[in-house]
Amino acid sequence: MRHDAIEHLVGLLSKLPGLGRRSARRAVLRMLQDPPTRMLPLAEALTAAASAVRPCQLCGNLDSTNPCRVCSDPARDQDVICIVEGVAELWALERAHAHHGLYHVLGGLLSALGGTGPADLSIQPLMARLAEGKVREVILALPATVDGAATAHVLAERLAGTGVQITRLAQGVPIGGALDVLDDGTLAAALKSRRAI
Amino acid sequence: MRHDAIEHLVGLLSKLPGLGRRSARRAVLRMLQDPPTRMLPLAEALTAAASAVRPCQLCGNLDSTNPCRVCSDPARDQDVICIVEGVAELWALERAHAHHGLYHVLGGLLSALGGTGPADLSIQPLMARLAEGKVREVILALPATVDGAATAHVLAERLAGTGVQITRLAQGVPIGGALDVLDDGTLAAALKSRRAI
Ligand SMILES: [Zn+2]
Ligand SMILES: [Zn+2]
Repeated sequence: MRHDAIEHLVGLLSKLPGLGRRSARRAVLRMLQDPPTRMLPLAEALTAAASAVRPCQLCGNLDSTNPCRVCSDPARDQDVICIVEGVAELWALERAHAHHGLYHVLGGLLSALGGTGPADLSIQPLMARLAEGKVREVILALPATVDGAATAHVLAERLAGTGVQITRLAQGVPIGGALDVLDDGTLAAALKSRRAI
Repeated sequence: MRHDAIEHLVGLLSKLPGLGRRSARRAVLRMLQDPPTRMLPLAEALTAAASAVRPCQLCGNLDSTNPCRVCSDPARDQDVICIVEGVAELWALERAHAHHGLYHVLGGLLSALGGTGPADLSIQPLMARLAEGKVREVILALPATVDGAATAHVLAERLAGTGVQITRLAQGVPIGGALDVLDDGTLAAALKSRRAI
């Protein structure tokens, strides 16, 4: 029997975070009730995003323009860079309207256990951005976890000689909590009461 | 600013049952980490399913073959037809391996409130199938709700003159419960202890 189009689709959808097999089946059935309006637009949006979206050459954000919309917005404060673990955290801060400067996506956290060292993160590109001399403040918006603290420590050491002010999020961030699941108010408050390291 | 590829995709995904906006964003981020292996295959599967999957001309099941795999399987009992509200219920019974005959999808339930009358359901095609004289038993696998009972009542009346035995699911089906969220064992037990109307 040839590969079944429905089961194949259910299998792919059920791999997405948040969708189990049962929800994937329900989603497929819903879409199959009217494929031209419910299925093909999603296929086209996926194809379009796959071809249009790239990591920003400056900050690492994912966007369909390069440099990304944040980096190319002249209204943003060009002298404050907020360092985030990943794009999810960047998006969460944007949704909170908490930060009006630029970003830098590390692409992970230092992790002795996970075998992630400084060379695996986007630290050299960050140093290059700072070397241009336009940045006044770097905000470390990293999670209050062991790995987050280790990463902040190493970054603070590297940045010590640059003359740039280093701040971090206030302790409004829950210990052990992921940044991208916090409500906007908590994020905004933690950012507002950031303090010098 | 032109329409954003990411926000458009998140919007479409968040309309799927079971996916909120937050899960849709997480799913998009996950896929954007490797579009060629995580995004394009899903786009292709959606396009393939949209073009291949059609309602079965015999029973109303959704499948990429027509007649569907159930109807064209010579090993299935050709003389027992299980009547279901929709394709979700057909798939649930198939997953339970509870029924070895054929199906007939009504496409809904009679509903005075919802304004669904007998002409809105696939009742005439069912009568045509029975008129061929090969069917010995019709199982009404309808939910134990007001609309389900009303639909079973009308179907029993229509089928009374055909000489076909009419049975319904045993009262193992919870009152007010949707069939497609039941566990396989409950479905199989209810089908096994079906009784004549
Ligand atoms: Zn950027
Ligand atoms: Zn069929």
